[in-house]
Amino acid sequence: MTVNTDRSAPDDELLDDGSIADSVTPWPISWVAEQMLGLPEEALVPHGRHVAKIDRTWLRRLEDAPQGRLVLVTGISPTPAGEGKTTTTVGLTDGLRHLGVRASAALREPSMGPVFGMKGGAAGGGWSQVVPMVDINLHFTGDFAAIASANNLLSALIDNHLHQGNALDIDPRRITWKRVLDVNDRALREVVIGLGGPSNGVPRQDGWDIVVASELMAIFCLATSLTDLKERIGRIVVAYTRDRRPVTAADLQAQEAMTILLSTALQPNLVQTLEHSPAFVHGGPFANIAHGCSSVLATRTALATSEVVVTEAGFGADLGAEKFIDLKCRLSGLRPGAAVVVATVRALKFHGGVALPDLQEEDICAVRAGAANLRRHLQNLREVFRIPAVVAINRFPQDTDAEIAAVREIAAAEGAEAVEATHAAHGGAGAAGLAQAVQRLLAEDDGEVSFCYPDEADMVTKAEAVAHRVYRASQVTWSATARRQLKQIETDGYGHLPVCFAKTPYSFSTDPSRLGAPEDHVVDIREVRLRAGAGFVVLMTGDVMTMPGLPRRPASATMSIEEDGRVSGLS
Amino acid sequence: MTVNTDRSAPDDELLDDGSIADSVTPWPISWVAEQMLGLPEEALVPHGRHVAKIDRTWLRRLEDAPQGRLVLVTGISPTPAGEGKTTTTVGLTDGLRHLGVRASAALREPSMGPVFGMKGGAAGGGWSQVVPMVDINLHFTGDFAAIASANNLLSALIDNHLHQGNALDIDPRRITWKRVLDVNDRALREVVIGLGGPSNGVPRQDGWDIVVASELMAIFCLATSLTDLKERIGRIVVAYTRDRRPVTAADLQAQEAMTILLSTALQPNLVQTLEHSPAFVHGGPFANIAHGCSSVLATRTALATSEVVVTEAGFGADLGAEKFIDLKCRLSGLRPGAAVVVATVRALKFHGGVALPDLQEEDICAVRAGAANLRRHLQNLREVFRIPAVVAINRFPQDTDAEIAAVREIAAAEGAEAVEATHAAHGGAGAAGLAQAVQRLLAEDDGEVSFCYPDEADMVTKAEAVAHRVYRASQVTWSATARRQLKQIETDGYGHLPVCFAKTPYSFSTDPSRLGAPEDHVVDIREVRLRAGAGFVVLMTGDVMTMPGLPRRPASATMSIEEDGRVSGLS
Repeated sequence: MTVNTDRSAPDDELLDDGSIADSVTPWPISWVAEQMLGLPEEALVPHGRHVAKIDRTWLRRLEDAPQGRLVLVTGISPTPAGEGKTTTTVGLTDGLRHLGVRASAALREPSMGPVFGMKGGAAGGGWSQVVPMVDINLHFTGDFAAIASANNLLSALIDNHLHQGNALDIDPRRITWKRVLDVNDRALREVVIGLGGPSNGVPRQDGWDIVVASELMAIFCLATSLTDLKERIGRIVVAYTRDRRPVTAADLQAQEAMTILLSTALQPNLVQTLEHSPAFVHGGPFANIAHGCSSVLATRTALATSEVVVTEAGFGADLGAEKFIDLKCRLSGLRPGAAVVVATVRALKFHGGVALPDLQEEDICAVRAGAANLRRHLQNLREVFRIPAVVAINRFPQDTDAEIAAVREIAAAEGAEAVEATHAAHGGAGAAGLAQAVQRLLAEDDGEVSFCYPDEADMVTKAEAVAHRVYRASQVTWSATARRQLKQIETDGYGHLPVCFAKTPYSFSTDPSRLGAPEDHVVDIREVRLRAGAGFVVLMTGDVMTMPGLPRRPASATMSIEEDGRVSGLS
Repeated sequence: MTVNTDRSAPDDELLDDGSIADSVTPWPISWVAEQMLGLPEEALVPHGRHVAKIDRTWLRRLEDAPQGRLVLVTGISPTPAGEGKTTTTVGLTDGLRHLGVRASAALREPSMGPVFGMKGGAAGGGWSQVVPMVDINLHFTGDFAAIASANNLLSALIDNHLHQGNALDIDPRRITWKRVLDVNDRALREVVIGLGGPSNGVPRQDGWDIVVASELMAIFCLATSLTDLKERIGRIVVAYTRDRRPVTAADLQAQEAMTILLSTALQPNLVQTLEHSPAFVHGGPFANIAHGCSSVLATRTALATSEVVVTEAGFGADLGAEKFIDLKCRLSGLRPGAAVVVATVRALKFHGGVALPDLQEEDICAVRAGAANLRRHLQNLREVFRIPAVVAINRFPQDTDAEIAAVREIAAAEGAEAVEATHAAHGGAGAAGLAQAVQRLLAEDDGEVSFCYPDEADMVTKAEAVAHRVYRASQVTWSATARRQLKQIETDGYGHLPVCFAKTPYSFSTDPSRLGAPEDHVVDIREVRLRAGAGFVVLMTGDVMTMPGLPRRPASATMSIEEDGRVSGLS
């Protein structure tokens, strides 16, 4: 991606993300740990010189440490114009450090599949990046590979159980556990396995998801210890018997081996920003098809070693922030003290109906029209979740002062401050104003949040609460399949779990083309997927896919590597 | 595995492998590198405290260093009675260190799939192990995951090409590149993918192999640099067009991205034995379905930093040693100065017809009968490959002196020394005699080897040379499919490549039940697989599988892990 060159101040040299990252010498990760977090070298498990995991024994020592404040970075509904949420998370962390606050970031690990497709990586941009970028965007410390291994071991155990006589009486037509890969591979969405005769197992229909969509990724990110991880894994419902009783991973004696495969990975990863602020990058469920937050263990480790932790939830606040609060906070006890809603003038104009090629023209009317999207996210944060919020205007060079003023005015009408930030071009210094605004919110905050629905509501009520209160839908409908699945889930005793919508990120509605702040729309739930180990139920809407495909011209075709290991074309 | 307790001297406490490993405090890996190999800390990329990769820049610096001598550890045809080849490789390395020789080991990385099945790990046993055992047996430094990622990216690119219009005119029925996982999963051997309608790609038959059977694993182990790796990947033939022209990975512009995914992994891994001898553990193709040797880069790194490098090839000498010489040595220029053939009295009795439960009874006649297997391997090494060899008798406590004497006598009749070794019970000290015998061979050796067939022979001649000279078959037959594939391979200009048999390891023949030294058997080649990137052709015989399955009671069911990360049931 070179998109960030757009954001440089006009007198700056136009540098791409890779060149900017290469121009900075990262500190040894042990310096970052010691000087920024007060963690000694023995608290680290090094992975090369610039990446480390936090040793398990130290995670336990940190449990009783005083906790810092948590800041959630979320955004308006994403557009192809770009918002820069990760970039702002990094910039704000560096900005807080400029004010003398011991801040750190808590981010998700990028998924490798999309890196070779279209999306590119997810390590921030411009002067607000986490490094080493290539490592973070690819295998990193092997966490996703470990999750895939454990996930696929469970699949192999299920099919082996069928093959070896099926003592549990698993119905091969009702196996819900899917295999996963961290590759964009549409041809694996629907498959038939076990062909070729009796020595190859039992033929059945199956499918693959991308790792970031898996229940095991969600479990990994919600687990608070190895023991909690193991217990959650044991509770996973993988299939149903012929008389419709749930079969769990514990029934297949899988939970110990799967936990063994995940034990190293469960230790949070530490890297640094270009300004040497600590960044915990750990776990990475997508926010459209999963719960979209980095790991609870990493957040807790960051809170135990920092005054302020800036964490990002995926996509817009309808998905990322809702799930952050209703799932991650509800299940873990974490509480954000403030939220930052990232917006750009360009994206607001796009929401206001301007076509992508025309976004560089000043258009105050379009900004005002598109700001309906921003307004609604702000209202949701304040009225539904009761979190104080500030708007971060991630300023691009073409944005005019009049457009910026319009955004400020709109935010002010909602009782929120809007602060322009130029961290992509100027690093943490460009986000110092934003950091000050965040500090003001934290000083006033009472540390409480509201959930969108109470724990004890039934599942239909929970789904309707999110659809009506957050998405502003007028109606929720359930397909016949979804109703049947809901009934089974309630019969089996899982009716009390919270809900996780799988929905397009591009609209409050389930139709990605309805930008701005659509109303009177219908949320059609076509499928309900139990995630008993993670502790929630996924409600599938629209045509959201849990395994992406590659585009006509995959990014892989334009990458290259030299004999010295130098990579280009990846960012 | 607790089988190694059998090998402890009777007055020893009976300890399992895990307890033995835990009783030793490993050195920081930087000490091992500096004191044992003369490598400074900056030559290492740490992965935790006891594992490191050798930094790429150092691999190039070491290219001009003086080279040590190479010793190949191979074995008799394996039996369920156990031979201990990895254990002997470790013991011999430690034994050489006892004599003051700067020795190191070069081993394959274990495959994770079988760890959860039946086989257990592959880190040696007793007092001759490499550590940290759990890490080495599981994800280790992520090399296999990286190979799987790169392999499966290529698969996704192939199916995406079909989906996006198929400009290369790939015949979906003639795609030879398979997806891979490091899981034992028989249900994936034969599958149909791309189901569910036009948005899910093009339906076609497909299949999965285990990572260690893949061409990419072979390429990884034969590559001499990143550039060589990239060129080999570009040459991979993944499919044929409708008019039967080969389609390569380069045609899909896949080689740069795949090399990027492999670049970290290509740096050799360094660990230590329980006696702190250095062990390079890198790459791991199986020897029955692939070429069975650890990486050329690791062997070269070891040779540039050690006086003697002890390396292991998989299974018996008919598979491992033949492929080590005819493939790894032929393609890399490496030359072993001596070979060690590992045998046990128990395994020889099994080859001589004794049933597994009766192996503890003294039976000189059975030893003599079974020694036909040992004799033939010794003859092959001397007559076909012209490598001086010594027999290592991996002594078990029940073995009688008369049985050992019988083995010595048989070896002597073949002009070879047989030395008993007790390294499993006594560490390197128990292999000092073996180490001395190896040193005598090295002192006499001229550093040359013979190949089984010349480069310029045609493929049928090459196959017959291995079958007649090494397997002692009376006849080689080719199925109609194999003949057609052979013709295509020759037409496409790959007829000059060397051959890699996929054959059962349990017999010289293709029938695993024919123990000892069968003659007059027929080698039936049912399929020919081109491996243009690796630089050889695989000849499939018998019913050898390239994706294993799990047993009725998988090892995963008996493993466990505690909150402090301590694992049991894995070795």
